[in-house]
Amino acid sequence: MGPDDPGSGMSYRDAGVDIDAKLTAIDRVKERARSTLGSQAGPIGHFGGTYLVPSGPDQILVASADGVGTKLRLAFVLGGEAHAGVGRDIVNHCVNDILALGAKPLFFLDYFATGKLDPDVVAAVVGGVADACLDNSLALLGGETAEMPDSYPPGEYDLAGFVVGTVLPDRIVDGSRIRRGDVVIGFPSTGLHTNGYSLARKIIGLTGEASPDGSILATALADGTSLGDALMAGHRTYRPEVQPLLDAGIVRGMAHITGGGLKDNLPRTLPPEAIARLDPAAWVTPPIFEYLVERGRVSLDERYRAFNMGIGFVVVVREADRDTVLDRLPEARQIGEIVDRVTSDESAVQGLSC
Amino acid sequence: MGPDDPGSGMSYRDAGVDIDAKLTAIDRVKERARSTLGSQAGPIGHFGGTYLVPSGPDQILVASADGVGTKLRLAFVLGGEAHAGVGRDIVNHCVNDILALGAKPLFFLDYFATGKLDPDVVAAVVGGVADACLDNSLALLGGETAEMPDSYPPGEYDLAGFVVGTVLPDRIVDGSRIRRGDVVIGFPSTGLHTNGYSLARKIIGLTGEASPDGSILATALADGTSLGDALMAGHRTYRPEVQPLLDAGIVRGMAHITGGGLKDNLPRTLPPEAIARLDPAAWVTPPIFEYLVERGRVSLDERYRAFNMGIGFVVVVREADRDTVLDRLPEARQIGEIVDRVTSDESAVQGLSC
Repeated sequence: MGPDDPGSGMSYRDAGVDIDAKLTAIDRVKERARSTLGSQAGPIGHFGGTYLVPSGPDQILVASADGVGTKLRLAFVLGGEAHAGVGRDIVNHCVNDILALGAKPLFFLDYFATGKLDPDVVAAVVGGVADACLDNSLALLGGETAEMPDSYPPGEYDLAGFVVGTVLPDRIVDGSRIRRGDVVIGFPSTGLHTNGYSLARKIIGLTGEASPDGSILATALADGTSLGDALMAGHRTYRPEVQPLLDAGIVRGMAHITGGGLKDNLPRTLPPEAIARLDPAAWVTPPIFEYLVERGRVSLDERYRAFNMGIGFVVVVREADRDTVLDRLPEARQIGEIVDRVTSDESAVQGLSC
Repeated sequence: MGPDDPGSGMSYRDAGVDIDAKLTAIDRVKERARSTLGSQAGPIGHFGGTYLVPSGPDQILVASADGVGTKLRLAFVLGGEAHAGVGRDIVNHCVNDILALGAKPLFFLDYFATGKLDPDVVAAVVGGVADACLDNSLALLGGETAEMPDSYPPGEYDLAGFVVGTVLPDRIVDGSRIRRGDVVIGFPSTGLHTNGYSLARKIIGLTGEASPDGSILATALADGTSLGDALMAGHRTYRPEVQPLLDAGIVRGMAHITGGGLKDNLPRTLPPEAIARLDPAAWVTPPIFEYLVERGRVSLDERYRAFNMGIGFVVVVREADRDTVLDRLPEARQIGEIVDRVTSDESAVQGLSC
């Protein structure tokens, strides 16, 4: 048999990459993706996705890349709806990131990588991505679905997202207008969102093995919710709440509370001379965090860095605008205030340690 | 010991996520990233990267997401310079994707995920990313570096990229102007680029184990190059060659030859009524492909779908413009011509089967 004998040799499929299966999986999600395309997005299937930006004044594109982290590992254990959930999570995570600079999202692309492509899982994940794109009025412009034999164990995958949005230069919110006396307003999270899952998994003993015993996820928390449901609660988008505040021009700084918690994320919007003095008693810590910090005996210092502890997004406004925000958004809480920095070695976020 | 005792409990670091190590690693690559920022990109470190688009006429943003695939697994075996190589690969891959629509790249973001963050590896990979961004004159606007315990074996990672470029609406190249009699011009690849590695690894026996014996990579090919060097040859950018042709307005269609090879990628730029008739004798197949197809007895049908077989990028121009292209770019070759489709079930790319 020579090398040109079509029946005798190695094929890409034998090597674990089934291009036809990939095309079938992509076809299944293409319709969902198409439903997100507004009038500015071009057709899907070219080498790149296209998005028309009409002529107009200067604008700033704002872009962010992110992943879901090891929340994925709980989705592998739970299966079913959890796959669509992490698809929605990555979109909302990315949207909140650029929202924190005042940007309106335009389009999104996903990266899905797995060892052996399961069309049902791809359809569930990308279906969740498409749903969240629709919710946030952004176009799912494309993405990459990679089948990588030997790189992911059976049933596992990684998921990343990329978003691009736009903001007018005089509307960008970078925290530079924050002054002493401004108030720090927090919006509740629905749970861990997409951060702190490696610590949470360690606390509940779901680490190591590829397919751990997930029975602990049925544990009831103080409010009756199961641990599994509480951990898989979706990363919410804050756009519906925050956009009206942006339109009103009253926002001086914003922070999306992701990896690093309030401690690492709030400083990203604070000018060097400002300190945020927070009062954790100002908001109710959800039962899932109480459960995790108690079971894991997580120190005060650690918990506000590993977890969002119930605050998913922060807005800083003038004191005079506080009631405008709180009256309009009953779930928002004033969680602190801005004070002057006295010495250069002070922590930029205070009130969260012993 | 109560839950508030700072010394007693579980920490994020115990759980395998070291936020400080991540920040140190990011600091090391930040300077490299900064060197890519032109006057339009804003500072790094906010929740999103920013890029100023000055006022002007309608424009089309073109975006693409992609990964490096299991070429990464060879980088894990070889280490050292191979990490920077895959960093450059992902940028060039993304740039070529949007180049195929006629777009000039503006900015790039990367996604790097690993089980335990090794600052040296991160610095090498992102250093390669930054170098290729400089080469292609695009800004490395940000990215995500994810430490995901349990999700990647020691020493392994995944890498994805995301690019955004721009093209004027009357300059977009979508293949719709392609007509019978046009010529198909191929640009040589440097090797497999970033596709076909799962088949290649199977052929040379580097599959399965996390740390296989890589001694076969020292095998000398027909041209004296080692198998390892040939497999790790960089995914080249075609921008320097193609941009002048775009500026001259003579390009009717383009294809970046990635996963799916000439067979699946050339049709993406062909209008429904056109067929590309190729002549594989028109170009020299590099030794690495000869070695792989012979050793793996890869069928004719399969090889032009799993591998690029020596052609990394294709441009379609009028016959009258052929010599303009070939005279200017000595490494380019006419590899085929456009003919009319006669029946609807004909393959869109012909000449690559028995």
